[in-house]
Formats: sequence, structure tokens, C-alpha cells
Amino acid sequence: MFENKDNSKTSISQLGEFGLIDHLTKHFTIEQETTIKGIGDDAAVLNYSENQNVVISTDLLVEGVHFDLSYMPLKHLGYKAVMVNLSDIYAMNANATQITVSLAVSNRFPVEALEELYAGITLASKKYNIDVVGGDTTSSTSGLIISVTAIGTVNSIDVVYRNGAKENDLIVVTGDVGAAYLGLQVLEREKEVFKVNPKSQPDLEPYTYLVERQLKPEARKDIPNLLAELDVKPTSMIDVSDGLSSEIIHICKQSDVGCNLYEDKIPLDPQVMATCEEFELDSTTVALSGGEDYELLFTIQTEDFLKIKANPHLTVIGHITDKKEGMHLITRANTKIPLIARGWNSLSEE
Amino acid sequence: MFENKDNSKTSISQLGEFGLIDHLTKHFTIEQETTIKGIGDDAAVLNYSENQNVVISTDLLVEGVHFDLSYMPLKHLGYKAVMVNLSDIYAMNANATQITVSLAVSNRFPVEALEELYAGITLASKKYNIDVVGGDTTSSTSGLIISVTAIGTVNSIDVVYRNGAKENDLIVVTGDVGAAYLGLQVLEREKEVFKVNPKSQPDLEPYTYLVERQLKPEARKDIPNLLAELDVKPTSMIDVSDGLSSEIIHICKQSDVGCNLYEDKIPLDPQVMATCEEFELDSTTVALSGGEDYELLFTIQTEDFLKIKANPHLTVIGHITDKKEGMHLITRANTKIPLIARGWNSLSEE
Repeated sequence: MFENKDNSKTSISQLGEFGLIDHLTKHFTIEQETTIKGIGDDAAVLNYSENQNVVISTDLLVEGVHFDLSYMPLKHLGYKAVMVNLSDIYAMNANATQITVSLAVSNRFPVEALEELYAGITLASKKYNIDVVGGDTTSSTSGLIISVTAIGTVNSIDVVYRNGAKENDLIVVTGDVGAAYLGLQVLEREKEVFKVNPKSQPDLEPYTYLVERQLKPEARKDIPNLLAELDVKPTSMIDVSDGLSSEIIHICKQSDVGCNLYEDKIPLDPQVMATCEEFELDSTTVALSGGEDYELLFTIQTEDFLKIKANPHLTVIGHITDKKEGMHLITRANTKIPLIARGWNSLSEE
Repeated sequence: MFENKDNSKTSISQLGEFGLIDHLTKHFTIEQETTIKGIGDDAAVLNYSENQNVVISTDLLVEGVHFDLSYMPLKHLGYKAVMVNLSDIYAMNANATQITVSLAVSNRFPVEALEELYAGITLASKKYNIDVVGGDTTSSTSGLIISVTAIGTVNSIDVVYRNGAKENDLIVVTGDVGAAYLGLQVLEREKEVFKVNPKSQPDLEPYTYLVERQLKPEARKDIPNLLAELDVKPTSMIDVSDGLSSEIIHICKQSDVGCNLYEDKIPLDPQVMATCEEFELDSTTVALSGGEDYELLFTIQTEDFLKIKANPHLTVIGHITDKKEGMHLITRANTKIPLIARGWNSLSEE
């Protein structure tokens, strides 16, 4: 009935993920006085008391799209499903407090498999000090689907949106980027080797950091606290889920500004550099478009530079420009390349 | 890898939906001081300000399990997905204020189909005065999955849980029950007829109420307001999603009480009675086990009876007893039958 054989119809892949969300949600208006920020940031911001906001974010993880159970242990999957959502809360400069977890599972999963999944969820909730307060469990006609909603709180004056970046602000990223994507490449390669020779024992030793970043990412709970300690309020912030390039474009578009990103400043782990060489991949492309890093990307006023300068968690990778100047990567050879969002797009043509 | 061929493993259907949720969530503890109520009620209850609570509830709807697109128009599906969640908020005696909507869709859906779905979501949000504040859209390897999270507010002293029913309290249900289940039977029959003869035009005229209750249910937004006007605070409340029998059992178990339900008091629409006769179904079984009514079931102190007595929306269908007396249906013939939860179970063996 809804097969897309009619050429007059628009296929989802013509719009892409962000285009589709924009298209479908552009008519939603804000009517409730408790709604401070609706669709369009890492989380919605609600206000029910004078000085404190509630932030809420939700994500769906779909088997075969976001994860492959042939190399993703269920315990890790449960852990990662929580991280993906907490990361959105921290990107609002907020503290995560609760989550709900809904599952759709087919009968091919025994209860013991779901116990593993929940063990990962429990581990994440204990480590990040959040309560699991609700959810829904239902059957699925095919794969496993996990829907997590995360809730957090932030003082009204501390909340940080994507749209506050101003010309001359510095662009800062936490940790390093590109490793999770390479971890996926390593695991995909091992899966192919295993198909040919099921007795082969993979040697993942040179890739431990990459595989860990893919299978057991950690959300940056520490960063809102660190920023408070350093007395720095970012002018904008977003989490790095789709790739550095895609995220800086979100900030620039929503803030109505441009940017220059410096290739030689992008923080890369030595394993990322070594593995890029082995896989014959360009490390900058991996860093910009890899995604799933769950680091935070933010902008600060130049006068805050001295406060963050010495911090090993934080790297200045560029600065905000006037919108007219566009969004560019300045390469090591000092050429300017326009940034494009090649973020991992789960809605591209199958 | 996780195929359930090992007999030492427990299949999900051995536990059933409620058993599975209990089993998986029993280890979750409450650590956050902002968490008032976690898993186990219609919604979680959070507190971020002195006198007001935030309630939050989430539901997954899965194609082929919860809906069949061959007779469920997408606009109705969008509307219903919102109602299912708002109903949980009203069951806490709260006012719904926001929702988030996440979708997993396969490429077989053209954008126009998703526009229809969103038209239903928009209609519901305008009619019920809630804001759509977030969500996620991703691809699915097979069917359509909709995950809605609803948020509401309630004065701390007005929140109603499932566990407050006391001996001698009266059991009250809003509206009437059983119609949505019969609507589904009518639609399933028409689908079979259509398969045999695609030119047949169904005459749904005698079933309009039933079909509307199935395809376009309305959550009881009016009831928390009505209860406030009548100056009645229920001692316990739940929404009727799985069937009257299943819901009263939830209330009794969580309140540690028993109950007597009177067969002749259960409110049935004339179309329910006529169609049960036509389909040779027992109307009491349909009313008790049908589900998807999205009415509210609650208990009140006997001294509040006069306040609700004259109200056409409310019907007293029984009373709470001591736990030792068990949970029973008192039939028209004045025999006592133990109540069993035969609620619609989406996790039974496929």
C-alpha cells in the first residue's frame, strides 16, 4: 500500500535525515509556556520552576542500522544506548538525572540476552549516577530496537544552545575524534575474516582504543562540571555524534555565522593516525566525518581562552567568522576547503 | 548468534510482557533525590520544584504488532500514538504538556506518507494543547516503529498512583469499554473480505463507534479537570490500555487489596452489545480483556460517592475488598469468578 513505486512521490533519501526532520517538524509551534526550547537542539528545554530548567532528549537505535550484533556484545550495546542519550544532555551543559528505556525485541532473543542488555544499562546508570525510571517492552517482527529518553537539569542561566556562537569565538573540542569510526572499520574487517575462516583469532591489540571507543563510548559527564570550575560558559555547544564537520555546520547555521577549522589542530589519538595509514584512509576525513565520538564541541569568547588553555581535555581547533566568509577547513598546506556535512547518515539509500 | 535454539535458555514468552518487565527492571534502584516514583506506574514522577511534579511516560508502537497499515491510515496512527501516551499522563491525574516523537522508517515509505503520520501527530497536539519538543528520525530495516515520550505536570499533592486503593473504596471507570477491541475485529474481518474480493465495498455504518474507538481513540484529558471540579482525589488510578481486568489486577496487586467487580455494572455501548451478538462473543469477556479503550479506571473513598454519582462520564463497577478475599467478577447470575489478566499481550509466542 505504501510501497514507493510511484514516481510522483518523494523518497526519504532525497531529503536525507536532517532534511527529513526539518521537513516534518517545521510546522510544530510552541504553545506551552513551560516549553523554552523545542525541536532543533541536542535536547528540548522545559521550565517548571523559577531558576531551573529540565532538559530532555531521545534517540532510537535500530539493529542493522545503528548496530550489528555479530560484533556488538549486548552488554556493550545497553551501555552505549545510554551514553548516546546522556551525551545530548551534557551538550546542553546540564546534569543527567534519569532515563527511560523502551525495547522492541523479537522472540529470537532469549531472556538471558535481554539480561545482558540490561546489565549494560544498569552499569551505565550506576557509573553516571542516573535513575532508570520507566520504559516499555514489546515484541518486534524483526530486529531489536532500543529507544532511550534522557532527562537532566540545569540552572536556567547555565543552559547552552547551538545558536549562540559569535564572530571571533574560539571553537573547542573535548578529547579526540575519529577513533570510534576506525573501531567500526576494524570490527567490520574482522567480521569478513571470520566469515572466510571461523577459526581465525583476531588480534585486536593494536586497535584497543579504537574498538573501545566504538563498543564502549563514554559520554562527557565531566565537561559541564569542568566548565563550571573553569568559570567558562560556552556560547554554543553540541555533541559529536554525526561527525565534527556535521556538528560545526549545525552550530554555524543555527548561530548564523561562518567558521575556520584548522586541520593541524584536530586532536587525533596515535592509534587513529597509525590505523588510518594501515587502512589508507585520510585521518582528517575520518576525524571530520567519522562520527560516534560523543565528545563535546563548543565555542567560547576569546577572553576565556586563558581559562581553558592549559587543560588537557580541551583543544582549540578554530574560530567563528562572519557568515559571509562561509565554513572552511584550513589545511596543513594552508588551502581553504569548504566544510560539508558528510556525517554518518542512517537515512541514505539502502 | 542469539537465536533461541538452546533449551537451557528462557524464551520471552515464558515470562510474558509484565513478567519480562518485572524480571529485567527489578534491580533498578532509585538514587536521585529528584526521582519520586520510578518504574511500575503509568508514568514516572520527578520533582524539581517544591510543589509541582513532572510526570513522564513512554511507549513504543511497532508495525505488525500494534498496528496494521492495511486498515490503519497513517494520519490516524499518528493521532493514536499520541493518545496512547497522553492517556498515561492523565492516569497520574496530571496535565500533559509536551511530547517527543521518534520514528524508525524504511525507505518503502515516501515522504508523503510520513507527512500524513505527522499530520495526525500535529492534529493531536493542537487538540490536546501539547508541544512536540523533540524526537529522532532514523531508518529501519523493516517496518515502521514509533516511540513517543509524554511529559506532564501535576501539583505534588494531587498525583495519583496505582498503589493507594483501600478496602471499601469504590471502583470507577470512565466512558465505556470493549469497543476498540470490537472495532479491530470488524476491521480484520473486512480485510479478509477484501482479500477475497477487492471490489467489495465494506459497510461499516453499523460499526462507526467501534471503528472510531479503534482508529481514533481519545485520551481522557477531561478527567483530571473533572475530578478537581468535583473535589475528588482518587485513591488509585490507571489507564485502560490492556483491558479492564488486567488494569484492576494491577491496582489490587500494587495496593495489596482484593476486589469485587459487578458484571451488570460494566458500561457497554449499544454497538458493543449488538456486535458481540453478531460475532458470537461474550460482551463481558470483550469488556474485561479487550483493551485499547484508553479510559481511566480509579478508586475513590466511599464518602466521595455522592460527588460522582450523577456524572454521566463515571460508572461505579465494584469495590475494593480485603486482599484475602481475592479478585473476583460477580456475574449477573451472582456467581463469583476469579479475575485473570488476559490483557492483550504483545509478547506472547508468535
